Amino acid sequence: MSLRLAVLGAGAVGGSVVELAAEYGHRVVGFADSSSGVVDAGGIDGERALERKSRDGAVGDDDPDDVLAADYDVLVEATPTTLGDAEPGFSHCLAALERDRHVVLANKGPVAERYADLRRAEEDSAGDVLFEATVGGAMPVLSTVADYGPGHISTARGVLNGTANFVLSRMAAEGLGYEHVLAEAQDLGVAEADPSFDVDGTDAALKCVILANVLSEARGGDVFSLDDAEVTGIKDIPGSALDLATEDGRTIRLIGEATPKRVRVGPRLVPQHGALAVTGTQNIVQFETEHAGQLNVSGRGAGGPETATAVLADVARLNR
Amino acid sequence: MSLRLAVLGAGAVGGSVVELAAEYGHRVVGFADSSSGVVDAGGIDGERALERKSRDGAVGDDDPDDVLAADYDVLVEATPTTLGDAEPGFSHCLAALERDRHVVLANKGPVAERYADLRRAEEDSAGDVLFEATVGGAMPVLSTVADYGPGHISTARGVLNGTANFVLSRMAAEGLGYEHVLAEAQDLGVAEADPSFDVDGTDAALKCVILANVLSEARGGDVFSLDDAEVTGIKDIPGSALDLATEDGRTIRLIGEATPKRVRVGPRLVPQHGALAVTGTQNIVQFETEHAGQLNVSGRGAGGPETATAVLADVARLNR
Repeated sequence: MSLRLAVLGAGAVGGSVVELAAEYGHRVVGFADSSSGVVDAGGIDGERALERKSRDGAVGDDDPDDVLAADYDVLVEATPTTLGDAEPGFSHCLAALERDRHVVLANKGPVAERYADLRRAEEDSAGDVLFEATVGGAMPVLSTVADYGPGHISTARGVLNGTANFVLSRMAAEGLGYEHVLAEAQDLGVAEADPSFDVDGTDAALKCVILANVLSEARGGDVFSLDDAEVTGIKDIPGSALDLATEDGRTIRLIGEATPKRVRVGPRLVPQHGALAVTGTQNIVQFETEHAGQLNVSGRGAGGPETATAVLADVARLNR
Repeated sequence: MSLRLAVLGAGAVGGSVVELAAEYGHRVVGFADSSSGVVDAGGIDGERALERKSRDGAVGDDDPDDVLAADYDVLVEATPTTLGDAEPGFSHCLAALERDRHVVLANKGPVAERYADLRRAEEDSAGDVLFEATVGGAMPVLSTVADYGPGHISTARGVLNGTANFVLSRMAAEGLGYEHVLAEAQDLGVAEADPSFDVDGTDAALKCVILANVLSEARGGDVFSLDDAEVTGIKDIPGSALDLATEDGRTIRLIGEATPKRVRVGPRLVPQHGALAVTGTQNIVQFETEHAGQLNVSGRGAGGPETATAVLADVARLNR
């Protein structure tokens, strides 16, 4: 069945959802950035909206609120992740759920910072909330947790930030220092001008908070937010530490770990050729399961089209 | 919601489903091996049935047909894989679908050898057929294909037989010959007394046939069976070939490859520390996707409890 999508957020992910939706059999009936919108019950012209956005900064002549008020089946919330109250993303979710519409999140804020509030709103709604795209881009992380059963997974750990991993794997492979590799990553567009969200571990921590919330929920446990995470970034790792690790057949990766009780992110020694030592911007998540040992999922943990496919996988799940 | 399962097959997988079902919230109302059965609408005593099976070879006093005729929601078909007409597994599936019941397969036969017949029977039924457990044990292979969209995956390749992989990785690591390592694997219980199904590539080929059927179906293409697969086993690989590969930073793995057009299984050179060079009985599947590059899934590709978790993941999907 073709579903009608309203897409909020015109960054790389929102834009890619608009571009790919038709290929996956769905119709985008509304699209908004923070200050403009375009609504068409027959399906917007996505290409035109994106062209206009890059030309004059607006996706269309309508108001963003018109998109939120449009007649859609699924709200795709892909506005930037915000911390604390997770606004305006959280209110967007609420507005959709109050109208008994489904919500698919690419924005980590509502599930990392206000998980309990969001689940309560979902309970009162005929709509469901899915958020595969918030953890590990294209990788089937949360769907694997859902299928396997979150109550039968004790730990999820892995490399959940491609920028930090690119920097660490280049430092180890080339023997270069942090500042040098970071500047290179910025030149390549792998790191942002302000890379703190990635290199401080915040982005990986948000993903681990989301995983911990899902694992904990299955056991009736605590709800986590970023404040509950123990986070150390990669800025203070000297090149000499990587050299020493290499001599010992190991390397250093920024590893996030989520259990039903705890969230931690920090640099860890891992075997040089082991599953966790992915290179470049690659991500991996390793699940410790109750009856099946370790399960690993790896792939591109970020990127517009990649993350959009996770959004569209959630839409497909809602459609079943 | 708790579902009522009828489990056919009392080998490692069927037995593990009986043992684990309650933990996943479901009730086993019937259980059969090839010559005996036990039926109880209130839920069978699984432990007792398995004890009796190991003591006197029968799971209970009922007939296997009584289990097929019981009032269940999901038929779990875990009898041994047979080639050609895939009987008696195929008829079991048909009997369930004709009564509008769901079928979850661990038996590869019906989906590898009679895919079109099975899909036709499913179309005429209110019941659905799922078969995650037929490919890669605990690994979320077919669910990843379903979520990502089979029409957006061009190739699935990987290591799909743990016995063959154990033999090859031991040969490479220890510099030992095929016969020596195979005997060792048999002593460890990793290889069966007659290992031909594994080392000839048949088992991996069946899994690739199933994957190709799913990829092809999404494009309205051909249906495959084992006869359509190009299969080469590992028996004729000399230790010297592995030594040469190692010198070159590579190693040899039995790689299966499924596309919408073709199924191939054979020894291939792969990078020694690359994703495909999993060791021991580990399995991996690598998907080439349209918008998200490569996605990898790895873990235990066989084993009773491991494969049972895949069966129970399918049951959970039916339950949503």
